[in-house]
Amino acid sequence: MNYKEESVLIESDISHELDTLFKPKSIAIIGASSKELSIGNVIIKNLVHYGYTGKIYPINPKEPSIRDIKAYQTIFDVPDDIDLAHIIIPSKFVPQIIEDCGKKGIKSVIINSAGFNEMGEEGIALQTAFLNKAKEYGIRVFGPNCQGIINTDPDYKAYCDFTFTFPEPGAISIVALSGGVGAFIMQSLFDLEIGMRYYASNGNACDISISEVLNYYGNDEATKAIILYTEGFHDPGEFMKVAKVVARKKPILAMKSGRTAEGAKAAASHTGSLAGVDIATELIFEKTGILSFTNEEEMCQAAKAFSTQPIPKGNRVGIITNTGGPAVIATDELVHAGMQIPALSEKAIQTLQQTLLPEASIGNPVDVVATGGGIHFRSALDVMMNEEQIDSVFINFVTAPFTDTNEVARSIVEVNQQHKKPIVCNFMTNLSLERFQETAKILKDGGVPCYSFPTTAAKALGALYRYHLVQNRHIGEPKHFNDIDKVKADSILNNVKSTGEFLSSEQVYTLLSAYGIPIADWRLAHSMADVVKAAKEIGYPVVVKVESKSLVHKSDLGGVAINLKNDNEVLYAVEKMKEDFIEEDLRFLVQKFLPGGKELVIGVSAQKDLEPLVMFGMGGIYIEVLKDVVFKLSPVTRVEANEMLSSIKAAKLLDGARGEAALDKHSVIEMILRISQLVNDFPQIKEMDLNPVMAFEDGAFAVDARIKI
Amino acid sequence: MNYKEESVLIESDISHELDTLFKPKSIAIIGASSKELSIGNVIIKNLVHYGYTGKIYPINPKEPSIRDIKAYQTIFDVPDDIDLAHIIIPSKFVPQIIEDCGKKGIKSVIINSAGFNEMGEEGIALQTAFLNKAKEYGIRVFGPNCQGIINTDPDYKAYCDFTFTFPEPGAISIVALSGGVGAFIMQSLFDLEIGMRYYASNGNACDISISEVLNYYGNDEATKAIILYTEGFHDPGEFMKVAKVVARKKPILAMKSGRTAEGAKAAASHTGSLAGVDIATELIFEKTGILSFTNEEEMCQAAKAFSTQPIPKGNRVGIITNTGGPAVIATDELVHAGMQIPALSEKAIQTLQQTLLPEASIGNPVDVVATGGGIHFRSALDVMMNEEQIDSVFINFVTAPFTDTNEVARSIVEVNQQHKKPIVCNFMTNLSLERFQETAKILKDGGVPCYSFPTTAAKALGALYRYHLVQNRHIGEPKHFNDIDKVKADSILNNVKSTGEFLSSEQVYTLLSAYGIPIADWRLAHSMADVVKAAKEIGYPVVVKVESKSLVHKSDLGGVAINLKNDNEVLYAVEKMKEDFIEEDLRFLVQKFLPGGKELVIGVSAQKDLEPLVMFGMGGIYIEVLKDVVFKLSPVTRVEANEMLSSIKAAKLLDGARGEAALDKHSVIEMILRISQLVNDFPQIKEMDLNPVMAFEDGAFAVDARIKI
Repeated sequence: MNYKEESVLIESDISHELDTLFKPKSIAIIGASSKELSIGNVIIKNLVHYGYTGKIYPINPKEPSIRDIKAYQTIFDVPDDIDLAHIIIPSKFVPQIIEDCGKKGIKSVIINSAGFNEMGEEGIALQTAFLNKAKEYGIRVFGPNCQGIINTDPDYKAYCDFTFTFPEPGAISIVALSGGVGAFIMQSLFDLEIGMRYYASNGNACDISISEVLNYYGNDEATKAIILYTEGFHDPGEFMKVAKVVARKKPILAMKSGRTAEGAKAAASHTGSLAGVDIATELIFEKTGILSFTNEEEMCQAAKAFSTQPIPKGNRVGIITNTGGPAVIATDELVHAGMQIPALSEKAIQTLQQTLLPEASIGNPVDVVATGGGIHFRSALDVMMNEEQIDSVFINFVTAPFTDTNEVARSIVEVNQQHKKPIVCNFMTNLSLERFQETAKILKDGGVPCYSFPTTAAKALGALYRYHLVQNRHIGEPKHFNDIDKVKADSILNNVKSTGEFLSSEQVYTLLSAYGIPIADWRLAHSMADVVKAAKEIGYPVVVKVESKSLVHKSDLGGVAINLKNDNEVLYAVEKMKEDFIEEDLRFLVQKFLPGGKELVIGVSAQKDLEPLVMFGMGGIYIEVLKDVVFKLSPVTRVEANEMLSSIKAAKLLDGARGEAALDKHSVIEMILRISQLVNDFPQIKEMDLNPVMAFEDGAFAVDARIKI
Repeated sequence: MNYKEESVLIESDISHELDTLFKPKSIAIIGASSKELSIGNVIIKNLVHYGYTGKIYPINPKEPSIRDIKAYQTIFDVPDDIDLAHIIIPSKFVPQIIEDCGKKGIKSVIINSAGFNEMGEEGIALQTAFLNKAKEYGIRVFGPNCQGIINTDPDYKAYCDFTFTFPEPGAISIVALSGGVGAFIMQSLFDLEIGMRYYASNGNACDISISEVLNYYGNDEATKAIILYTEGFHDPGEFMKVAKVVARKKPILAMKSGRTAEGAKAAASHTGSLAGVDIATELIFEKTGILSFTNEEEMCQAAKAFSTQPIPKGNRVGIITNTGGPAVIATDELVHAGMQIPALSEKAIQTLQQTLLPEASIGNPVDVVATGGGIHFRSALDVMMNEEQIDSVFINFVTAPFTDTNEVARSIVEVNQQHKKPIVCNFMTNLSLERFQETAKILKDGGVPCYSFPTTAAKALGALYRYHLVQNRHIGEPKHFNDIDKVKADSILNNVKSTGEFLSSEQVYTLLSAYGIPIADWRLAHSMADVVKAAKEIGYPVVVKVESKSLVHKSDLGGVAINLKNDNEVLYAVEKMKEDFIEEDLRFLVQKFLPGGKELVIGVSAQKDLEPLVMFGMGGIYIEVLKDVVFKLSPVTRVEANEMLSSIKAAKLLDGARGEAALDKHSVIEMILRISQLVNDFPQIKEMDLNPVMAFEDGAFAVDARIKI
């Protein structure tokens, strides 16, 4: 974990601390080697090859020069200041070298060497040792066991990495936990001719974290969008804090792998097992506004659009094509991505009738036909740009041999540069032919994102639209209820001795009541007479349950009797239970029976290093057979609670489908918010299951609940 | 539609009829032009450029030669036989030219010219005229208004098309309705370095149909897999007949666009509206064993694997990687595609412990690490090939600068060529570096399908596995019930006068009974006394319904009384109905009331040019709110009916979830099969809705039903 206070991380002044890492004016390579293909040689080769603008100081005790660059025996022999040091020496020497770096005044180091936390006890001790030295001297550490960073800025051209892709400068910055994936994403951007700004892959991440790098990218004006790859988070809380701020400023395209891993421990409770496979990351992405991808190619293709195009103001797309079929395919995918293809205005149609070829098909999509030239594309583009009901433009451009395709490309580029609506172009051509290479170059130099498949282009436009949704989704702050009794809740939970224990019904109901969560009226009774008295007070019909900590599935064992309508029925039921449950000090929970409502379930499961998950669904078969549940990361805001109710598949039932009355959604939402506050106030709660909550036209009440510490 | 008998289409001798189209020894270009970029010029240019091995005869009344090839004034001036003629002259001259072609003995023509059926009445007349001539002379017509065909076979190199992509010979054949999409798919194969065998895009398809081309490809030994793109079917029945046969022989990868089109007419009935968006194509694909794609890039990438790799014998994948992250990503996608990553055998682990580098990670995935060389990859590959519990191999190969990547590539190629298990390779490299170009070439020449993204490679392997499933899915033949009364059914349906009419309840129940479909016992009664008598006969409790053709939603209007337990309740209910429904000759349907079952729905909706769709789902909210229904194309086989029951989301409820008894699935399946037979015997049935069918532990009964003619 990084040793800086995370709370100050998002301040921009602290952000400059990574400048010596990303913008070094001089770099020492400690462990420089004359051996071809060794990392201590490749890094120097890469720096030189990529045109690093600063000074390179190979450090090697024996060689006078490496790759024709003067080498020094130690860093103390270097006559100048050093911003950044690569450390490529055996791990056991690293603590000493870090101390030397401190004495030399070096502010950042990249430790490429392995042999630390990933290698057991000895390695852990070494990592602790060098980190202590780093703290002492105020050195920021990138790595160890990592690739490094790349800054493509022509002012720096700092290729501090041993990979083999040499990207063009651009607007996309990459941060990746896995160097293997990071490198191939960088390569993919290169193959797709998407420029890159920064690259960082930080291996063991002992100090400088992904969050800190993300924050640095967020404050970098030249970074238009960020690609993030991870397989998990060291400190999800810190990450969320940063991501939330950065995602407002610029799109973060992210992918987390290990989606299907069966690694998630099977949690005992209902809620836990439904959460099962890693859904927390998706919820982190959703809550912070990160665009989640499950396909790295789609992510890279989307980055292409983000690197040059503005974000659309809405979901309405104008399609311009010069061949029919691909427009049909694009329409399918755009609609699938939640976008619309609205009709054109009368005025637009009239204009196109005058400007396009007679065989053109006028509408949306507008088909300028394969014989259409630059002026026809231009006219269609102008119309789309001027149409109020169009937010973005999708172009299908096949390079018909009988057309001046360069002129078409120039028209597209002109409009792309003059207008604020995003354009993506499915460009169908044969790039092995020189004339079409020229057309492609015009489009690329003009900042038009081009794709080879209509679906791919449509997905990229869909990603721009997703960021529009992120920008316009304001979940608000979680409501803080004041009508709660936190002291009482605290005393109940303090009374529970050991973790792993379930609370008694009395504790559960008292705790929930303390947080203002409505519960079907209840009493705890010892004697037969007390039970009847309680039933009378509550009013018939009632439910009677055996109160026993050891029995979780009471109802299966005859420990629950429902819909008892009078004293006799209560007496009969209690007598039966006394026979079945021979326990000392047997107690009974008497509760109001609430028939006729809809069964809901609200659950909570704690997460390691993360706020608890809150679950909502409809009870019975909806949850058990259809798995129709939705999760949010707490603290849940009112907007999110609303989303929970509307995003289950059976959502319509809450509104009263099939002639039934609508449920009191407001009360259900209040209950979710209060539960969210409760579990955030008391992180010792590991699981909570309100099952069922009975919801009515007016009001909603927890009827049965379990809480585990 | 083609004028040949479709039933003989799949015979292989008729298949040779397309030989003059795909394997012409001589081609006349009628309408050859000296004007650069005109179609009559481009086609000659393409034939020459591509190295056509036959003779080219430009036909032009004025020019002595075109593109330096001797031209002839008419086809009659050509001294030799002509196999194939391109026709590129104005539509009005086409009928005459077809006659000339007939007289000259030409067997196939490609009509590139437009101006026929797509252009209104005059065009239709011209198309009819030339088709009549073609029939008279036995000429097969490709087009009109089309691109043409390409045969890449070095013996022919027939580029009879005006497009601009010049593919390498290969094993994938393309047939596309839309020339625009066909051309870019061909270009995509070219870009992905996938060889192509045949290409065909037949425009108006007045004679030679997509089905016929598909059949031709099916009989072509050099075609390993077929790519099909369509926006709809002229004759789905013919298509299915052919596709079913061809899909058994080789994989057909298909995409139909227009998935989201709101074109499907809003059908009045429940079933129809749920069918809504074009699901029929998906069902055609499913029934015939075509691999359906919704993303053309995925389809092309899959074609790459099909072009060189065998089909796996199961879903168990061995993963070999030399970098961690991409293997995680691949695992996610493979599991998502229904595949498994089984553990290795003890023996395999022991072998790998001896052969791999000490830092290698042994298991599945096996990580030979980036420093691993050819022998390490080879050892891992041999192990995977020898493991019984592995059906296919996924390779992640990053070209680390310090490795002899060519040696690794050669190891992969050797194993690829020696073994029968399919291999796909996610090859992460920088192809702008010469040394890695060489590595790529070794892999490509060795027939190893390489991809740039792990997810893309995994999806391609997933497609191979999908074809394994197709090969192993035998739906069987539809059961033909003999215990039915077809004559009675026929007489009932003949009594229904007009289409669009609903059958009366009496007609509905009699018809269903005639086909052995169990119905809750029923009587039709006129008088009050009759109703009571009927109720007694049936046995209480009963349901009484007003019998009225004009009332479809009887129950909303008080026309249905359920659970009547005795004479008095019946009398009361009937009296009430008589007050509410003042109709002459009011009649009542008395029916056994069957409480306690599960509500199911079985529906049917007729399709234009296609067998009816059969729908199955659970009634009530399952169908209305959750849209949890499944469709099959009739005739439904027992295997398919079984699939219907098991593929609804709530399938577990049929098996008796939550302590309930399992339903009598056998009876439900029988009912589906009988209904399928009924609607196939009587295509005049437009809609049928058995809603609800009440299913019990023993037996299932239609309780209410509507049938529309």
